[in-house]
Amino acid sequence: MPVCDSRRVRVIGIGTGSPAHVTGQAISALRECDVFLVADKGEVKDELVAVRRAICEEFLDEGSYRIVPVTDPERGPDAERDRTAYRAGVDAWHAARADRYAEIIASLPEGETVGFLVWGDPAFYDSTIRIVDAVAERLPLDVRVVAGLSAIQVLAAEHGIVLNGIGQPVHVTTGRRLLDEWAPELGTVVVMLDGSLKCRELVERAPDLVIHWGAYLGLPQQVLRSGRLADVIDELIDLRAQLREEHGWIMDTYALTTASAPHPA
Amino acid sequence: MPVCDSRRVRVIGIGTGSPAHVTGQAISALRECDVFLVADKGEVKDELVAVRRAICEEFLDEGSYRIVPVTDPERGPDAERDRTAYRAGVDAWHAARADRYAEIIASLPEGETVGFLVWGDPAFYDSTIRIVDAVAERLPLDVRVVAGLSAIQVLAAEHGIVLNGIGQPVHVTTGRRLLDEWAPELGTVVVMLDGSLKCRELVERAPDLVIHWGAYLGLPQQVLRSGRLADVIDELIDLRAQLREEHGWIMDTYALTTASAPHPA
Ligand SMILES: C[S@@+](CC[C@H](N)C(=O)[O-])C[C@H]1O[C@@H](n2cnc3c(N)ncnc32)[C@H](O)[C@@H]1O
Ligand SMILES: C[S@@+](CC[C@H](N)C(=O)[O-])C[C@H]1O[C@@H](n2cnc3c(N)ncnc32)[C@H](O)[C@@H]1O
Repeated sequence: MPVCDSRRVRVIGIGTGSPAHVTGQAISALRECDVFLVADKGEVKDELVAVRRAICEEFLDEGSYRIVPVTDPERGPDAERDRTAYRAGVDAWHAARADRYAEIIASLPEGETVGFLVWGDPAFYDSTIRIVDAVAERLPLDVRVVAGLSAIQVLAAEHGIVLNGIGQPVHVTTGRRLLDEWAPELGTVVVMLDGSLKCRELVERAPDLVIHWGAYLGLPQQVLRSGRLADVIDELIDLRAQLREEHGWIMDTYALTTASAPHPA
Repeated sequence: MPVCDSRRVRVIGIGTGSPAHVTGQAISALRECDVFLVADKGEVKDELVAVRRAICEEFLDEGSYRIVPVTDPERGPDAERDRTAYRAGVDAWHAARADRYAEIIASLPEGETVGFLVWGDPAFYDSTIRIVDAVAERLPLDVRVVAGLSAIQVLAAEHGIVLNGIGQPVHVTTGRRLLDEWAPELGTVVVMLDGSLKCRELVERAPDLVIHWGAYLGLPQQVLRSGRLADVIDELIDLRAQLREEHGWIMDTYALTTASAPHPA
């Protein structure tokens, strides 16, 4: 492959499931693509793959594109090893993954444009850009990223709230970090990737916290709840377990605000 | 006006200037509206008003909607008063503003739907939702909010970066708060509403900071710069002043990351 002829790659944020979240810019980028690479994580959430297919079908002509699943390389049994070995194992796995993507991309017919459909916004807790950056160290790529609505924003919009208090900050973090990080000075704290509503352990430290919670945001089964954390957390834990069972999977996110935060117009 | 007949209000995020940022959901919401209320702040940035008009013209049929400017009430000379009086002054001004919007909305033909076009995403540093909430205390409203791409996301997409380090948080704050708040534990810090690149004062405290900066994001005159903060800040300050003079106004935002943050795939 001639080095000067770089491969076009489009990393396209598609929002959180509703085709109505897709921007005009994303539609144009979708139309540029000949082939979409979709990570096949083994335990694929069929519904999320179906959403990506539905978005292609909604905006593209049949036969004008292909969807190619990419199987992630096997991950070594590194959980039990020491930290350095663990780190090395993760690095090796990332390298193997980048090699695999590079190989697939290099094997595509010359001139074809490669698309990645990213759930939400590629800028928040998504590995696609990191993979593409690693591939770009192996192959010349011409990469363009298109922003998409993030679950963070759909959460706020569906609840009709502003995330920041007046002149105050917004902090976005993960369930894993929440308990170590939380402090009132952070302003509104938005939590993603929390498999167990860790915020329940903040109830004693911060009895005035208010939660705005949303699951399956943008999808037909969307569920919203809000209230004083202390009042609603038990019900929310039950509801989350019940929804998870009912649908077989759940994706949820929430914002924590202190009720004492300024809220006049 | 019968109390049970609530007025439909649509708060619509339009992205940061490019009609290509508009989502399908936002287009549908635009089409629901009969009248758009646009705050006329006296020192109106003509170009930003023009962008809103252009978006209406792009997606709506001529004659199917009206644009009504709303003049903000006069603000008392409260800068020199003490804090309590200042606060009271601000509250009174907010109340006067909500009264004015309520009056205009109440006077519209029955059944008409009111739209607010919000720059970026209504969830980040925008007062529209707070105004509408205050109006809803005066009139029965049926409010729907539609998320839009925020400058935060367009910044990340145009630079092709993920905002969070792997598993790390993202903190969004204002220029006014940056120097008091900044700490490496905050993760990537995104700064909005900074009229003077306050980050320059972080150079000594955090010599490894990397900046991704963008002005006029999504507009034809978009400018991007990135680099080690210590290396680029002087040039950036000059560039910002020059752009501001050239265009008569500037809107810019930036993300600060520590170069030492984990960055493998
Ligand atoms: C790997 S991150 C991807 C985030 C995505 N890039 C975005 O911008 O929304 C997955 C997390 O995002 C949140 N999330 C994504 N989609 C969601 C949805 N439809 N409803 C609720 N939360 C969602 C959840 O917190 C989930 O654990
Ligand atoms: C009042 S806030 C509104 C933010 C908006 N709601 C959003 O989500 O982008 C205005 C600030 O947003 C940022 N901003 C908005 N539009 C921008 C653009 N096109 N380019 C760069 N920064 C922008 C700037 O930091 C500006 O000071």
